[in-house]
Amino acid sequence: MEAFSDGVFAIAITLLVLDLRVPDAGHLTVSQLLHAWPHYFAYVVSFLTIGIMWMNHHTILSHVTRVGRPLLVINLLLLMGVVAIPFPTTLVAENLHGGSGGPVATVTYGLVMIAISAGFAGLWIYVVTHASQVGAALPPRTLRQSIPRFTLGGAVYAAGTVVAAVGFPLAGLIIFGLLAVYYLFEHLPSPDSDTPFG
Amino acid sequence: MEAFSDGVFAIAITLLVLDLRVPDAGHLTVSQLLHAWPHYFAYVVSFLTIGIMWMNHHTILSHVTRVGRPLLVINLLLLMGVVAIPFPTTLVAENLHGGSGGPVATVTYGLVMIAISAGFAGLWIYVVTHASQVGAALPPRTLRQSIPRFTLGGAVYAAGTVVAAVGFPLAGLIIFGLLAVYYLFEHLPSPDSDTPFG
Amino acid sequence: MEAFSDGVFAIAITLLVLDLRVPDAGHLTVSQLLHAWPHYFAYVVSFLTIGIMWMNHHTILSHVTRVGRPLLVINLLLLMGVVAIPFPTTLVAENLHGGSGGPVATVTYGLVMIAISAGFAGLWIYVVTHASQVGAALPPRTLRQSIPRFTLGGAVYAAGTVVAAVGFPLAGLIIFGLLAVYYLFEHLPSPDSDTPFG
Amino acid sequence: MEAFSDGVFAIAITLLVLDLRVPDAGHLTVSQLLHAWPHYFAYVVSFLTIGIMWMNHHTILSHVTRVGRPLLVINLLLLMGVVAIPFPTTLVAENLHGGSGGPVATVTYGLVMIAISAGFAGLWIYVVTHASQVGAALPPRTLRQSIPRFTLGGAVYAAGTVVAAVGFPLAGLIIFGLLAVYYLFEHLPSPDSDTPFG
Repeated sequence: MEAFSDGVFAIAITLLVLDLRVPDAGHLTVSQLLHAWPHYFAYVVSFLTIGIMWMNHHTILSHVTRVGRPLLVINLLLLMGVVAIPFPTTLVAENLHGGSGGPVATVTYGLVMIAISAGFAGLWIYVVTHASQVGAALPPRTLRQSIPRFTLGGAVYAAGTVVAAVGFPLAGLIIFGLLAVYYLFEHLPSPDSDTPFG
Repeated sequence: MEAFSDGVFAIAITLLVLDLRVPDAGHLTVSQLLHAWPHYFAYVVSFLTIGIMWMNHHTILSHVTRVGRPLLVINLLLLMGVVAIPFPTTLVAENLHGGSGGPVATVTYGLVMIAISAGFAGLWIYVVTHASQVGAALPPRTLRQSIPRFTLGGAVYAAGTVVAAVGFPLAGLIIFGLLAVYYLFEHLPSPDSDTPFG
Repeated sequence: MEAFSDGVFAIAITLLVLDLRVPDAGHLTVSQLLHAWPHYFAYVVSFLTIGIMWMNHHTILSHVTRVGRPLLVINLLLLMGVVAIPFPTTLVAENLHGGSGGPVATVTYGLVMIAISAGFAGLWIYVVTHASQVGAALPPRTLRQSIPRFTLGGAVYAAGTVVAAVGFPLAGLIIFGLLAVYYLFEHLPSPDSDTPFG
Repeated sequence: MEAFSDGVFAIAITLLVLDLRVPDAGHLTVSQLLHAWPHYFAYVVSFLTIGIMWMNHHTILSHVTRVGRPLLVINLLLLMGVVAIPFPTTLVAENLHGGSGGPVATVTYGLVMIAISAGFAGLWIYVVTHASQVGAALPPRTLRQSIPRFTLGGAVYAAGTVVAAVGFPLAGLIIFGLLAVYYLFEHLPSPDSDTPFG
């Protein structure tokens, strides 16, 4: 399961490059290249986001020693969200240049992120509540202690989505990027720590 | 062989995102986004379908300890069908909005699924009938017991294809989706159980 | 090296699906779908070709237990040819419908195949002539015995290319397909057999 | 981490084929095929570049036996550059045919390469300066000895970028290609040697 998931993460993160393009690049000029900045910005935010999700996914699975059908299904639903990330990334890259499309695109991005957060929370809750079944050595209080973490992450994604919805799509995207950076630099104390979502 | 197959499944499932697009997304509006629902629906159905196929492929290969050329060839033909799934998925996504294209696209989807079902049946029949050759510990009656299963799956795909052919493409696609969900939630009793196809 | 090569083969084979498309598929009809047959035909030929190449690549590397820089470089050059296969595949699919483009596209396909054959021959010759260096247990006469095989394969690819060049592109492509099928069904006597190229 | 990185390298190198295309290839002619030479040239340069980067990345990681969060983050930033390579490759391929676009595209290519060189240097410096932390058996003077190497590589990429900027994009690209070839044929003395960057 981990090899398959790793492969899916690796491909999803690499497909982001397909969005790195300059429209009508036949006679390239510097201003054309600079004008395409939303593509680069969306690439960086999504790349860091998928990268940190991969790390946390790895951390969660490092607790698991026995994989059953329910875990495979939850994991598949989670991957269905991760694989979709290039879609709102393209929407954002093509609509961040002012106009009414920016908020619509960024809210879509936020909703996908909220769905993925829910998937990570579901995966983590399943592992903690079925610790003996999946072969994890986790005390029951781990779940209670980790609740603030995934409440915070989901809340920040929701906040960024609201900021985008009321007309500030770039600010919303910056919030999503900062959330990725926040998790990127978080130093986990040990391999058996609890990091429920990205 | 399993690493190569896993890689192919992981890439095929991730390439589905390339079909998640909104035509003419320059000035995105909410109605435009909602109007593209066939793309999202086809993505979910194909994602779950490939995901469950990967799980069942894994289960079949878990019986195999020695890989010869015939098994590699059958597996390659099966993968040729799985890799093709994004093609009918795109056809369906672009033609589900009423019009005469819907039935044609969905029947194509169904025919690809029937071919893949035949590939899974062939792989499973080969493993069971050459159990000692591939190093599987399966009693001969396993094949007879599993015949109802792959007759059922192939029949449901055929039924969905007929439903689409007579003018109800959306209903056909829903049948394909339910078939994936049915297999998704099936709890296999043990790693050495018999699940012949997706 | 083998994991990286396997990944490259798996991705190259899966990217072939990007060529499976029906031009202007908005209002799909059956005749439109059938008219796109060169796309399906090219897909099948290239899929089988890459698949059999992967198998033979695997067989060659199974002799190798120590990997040095020269082997990595030869392997990289070989992969550069394999990864390019979707390019002539698309050319063939878009030009097989009569017209002057068919021979040009199919000759390009053949030239890529001849280059890959040379790469496989180079890889195999290196392994056999540096057997002790790469940790392979191969007697020196293995090379002499395998020369007919890679002379044959290269000659058949050259023959198909000539057939396409003189105005029969479809016949040339069928020759390439038959060559893949020939290698597909070849039963290798043992894991330490000599199959120099695809 | 290595499996994930290997996957990302394998996908990035394979996606280069998407740039191998002949514009308006419906009625293919030989002159059309030859006219698209910048696409083939850019493909070869980028393929060799990513391939050699993968080899050196492998060499660096072969020193590491314990992976912590900082190393994961540095590696992720490095991969963000490697994954982006198909983007400037496409720009170069579409603008090398004379005109003002060539220098702009090739300078962009060079800047991405300089950023990746910095990433490799950062990864290598981190490994050497935190040798005990990551479980590497490297004497402190290894860093001092390897400084000339990564100063040279970065300097050659900068020189090629300058050559392109002053109006010779093709010459710049040839310099980038020669740099890849130079590293390609470098014979590393042993698996625990020091090759800091690509």
